Amino acid sequence: MSVLIAGSIAIDTVKTPVAERLNQLGGSAAYASIASSFFAPTRVVSIIGHDFPKEHIAILTGRGIDIEGIEVSEGESFRWSGEYHEDLNMRTTHDVAVNVLEHFQPKLPAGYRDSQIVVLANMSPQNQMDALAQCDAPVYVIADTMDLWINLAREQLFELLTKVDMLVINDAEAKEFMRTNNLIVAGRQLRAHGPKHVVIKTGEHGALLFGADESEFFRCGAYPLHAVEDPTGAGDSFLGGLAGSLCALGKTEIAFGDLKNAIVHGTVMASYNCQSFSTDRLHSLTQGDIDARYSEFRKFTEF
Amino acid sequence: MSVLIAGSIAIDTVKTPVAERLNQLGGSAAYASIASSFFAPTRVVSIIGHDFPKEHIAILTGRGIDIEGIEVSEGESFRWSGEYHEDLNMRTTHDVAVNVLEHFQPKLPAGYRDSQIVVLANMSPQNQMDALAQCDAPVYVIADTMDLWINLAREQLFELLTKVDMLVINDAEAKEFMRTNNLIVAGRQLRAHGPKHVVIKTGEHGALLFGADESEFFRCGAYPLHAVEDPTGAGDSFLGGLAGSLCALGKTEIAFGDLKNAIVHGTVMASYNCQSFSTDRLHSLTQGDIDARYSEFRKFTEF
Repeated sequence: MSVLIAGSIAIDTVKTPVAERLNQLGGSAAYASIASSFFAPTRVVSIIGHDFPKEHIAILTGRGIDIEGIEVSEGESFRWSGEYHEDLNMRTTHDVAVNVLEHFQPKLPAGYRDSQIVVLANMSPQNQMDALAQCDAPVYVIADTMDLWINLAREQLFELLTKVDMLVINDAEAKEFMRTNNLIVAGRQLRAHGPKHVVIKTGEHGALLFGADESEFFRCGAYPLHAVEDPTGAGDSFLGGLAGSLCALGKTEIAFGDLKNAIVHGTVMASYNCQSFSTDRLHSLTQGDIDARYSEFRKFTEF
Repeated sequence: MSVLIAGSIAIDTVKTPVAERLNQLGGSAAYASIASSFFAPTRVVSIIGHDFPKEHIAILTGRGIDIEGIEVSEGESFRWSGEYHEDLNMRTTHDVAVNVLEHFQPKLPAGYRDSQIVVLANMSPQNQMDALAQCDAPVYVIADTMDLWINLAREQLFELLTKVDMLVINDAEAKEFMRTNNLIVAGRQLRAHGPKHVVIKTGEHGALLFGADESEFFRCGAYPLHAVEDPTGAGDSFLGGLAGSLCALGKTEIAFGDLKNAIVHGTVMASYNCQSFSTDRLHSLTQGDIDARYSEFRKFTEF
């Protein structure tokens, strides 16, 4: 079984209270595919410009990721630059150059159509639906989104919700989208709009999983990090770890308990991601690193 | 074994987005002692004025709480009034009448001195130390505090930390006290100031427990409430549930695992407390209610 990740690939410039790094590998599909690749064969659908650094692509191929679905355009690559404040939950975006993403139309190579776990990482809801429409019969479809689309493409986002098995969204966005201050209400209302499962990411606090009814609920804490170097891509790494570990089960029916384990794996990948700029820590992990932190998670939550 | 709770007893007026209630039972010792009383014999040290409503005291005695240590003064009772906003994490204090608390000097009845679990609920650090000094040989001492004392009595708070086994504090206060934006750093630094254990309450996200080193860590999620009627006293109910359930173990040495279970019990009591104004839901609980929610907690966090 394989994971398909559709999303953006970017050139990022990131400043944090400790350092600034220019022209790094970024984008939702980059983080998600690297995280997924530790668990299952992973394929990427995205677009880059003629100027995209070869060494960034080498990071993906070095992880064995199938990049046939990454279109190389004549245009300039998508670029993002931003800055994190002393409170790392506060971020200012300095510049976004959409470039090749503006007219992007996801095209799945023929060999990608049979992907069982499909991840619609953060990009426009229309791009997400276009990518999904090219899949034959996925076992489980997961979509992420962000505040930009809640504001710009609310109706398309509601349409997307009727087509996916799981929505992954952060806490502030879930409240804004559902117009409530209560995360539990937001999670249940989002689920009522279509997806079987909803995950609300709560940053340093972890993630909440909502299922069929009030008894299907799971809360996963975040790993206790005393130092965060760069939180960029944490949500995407979470998504990739979740999808990859779900795929590794090789199931054609996903149970609620399977999702719990997948979310813990996602949280492990997100925590490692925060410990370096770009994908530096993430792409250099070993299976032993992942297993060790997964075991710690169990110890930190069992009573 | 018995729990001693030293703290304030108040007449509260609380407004939330759904209703306003006048002249209710409030104060840290009221909430904490009621929560504790479901698990262990509980004694209270506090002060009230001549005007304190008899029916409020009847709630305490109705729960079998020993009120010999509640001094009845000639003065007026301590009063607090405040308002919660649509986002219930935001609270505005409208009025505080310190009254009898101003010159309060906690006095333990002779029969209280052998208390094994001592809770120094929220009041001035000096009052907390004065109450503790009258105890013979407590097994475990827990102190709570608030931003007021971090600002007004920082040095006394540091002195208090050297005398207690556990500090319980909320997330914003922990960051402010330790001057950091990272909760994990705050927890470890607070521990380094004296207490063997530190609990940081994270509101709707639950609580974090820090122990001797990085391997002694526990994260307890909050119970998923889709409606919160009045969060006043949630932290105090947590404290009381924690102390009472710890006392019920009857141990003279407290292990880290004992604290985990106690924290889950505290979280159960805090969640029920949020479902009504004042102590209405809390004081009318049954053992079955408590056991049921404790079991749900396990299911919601196990993977």
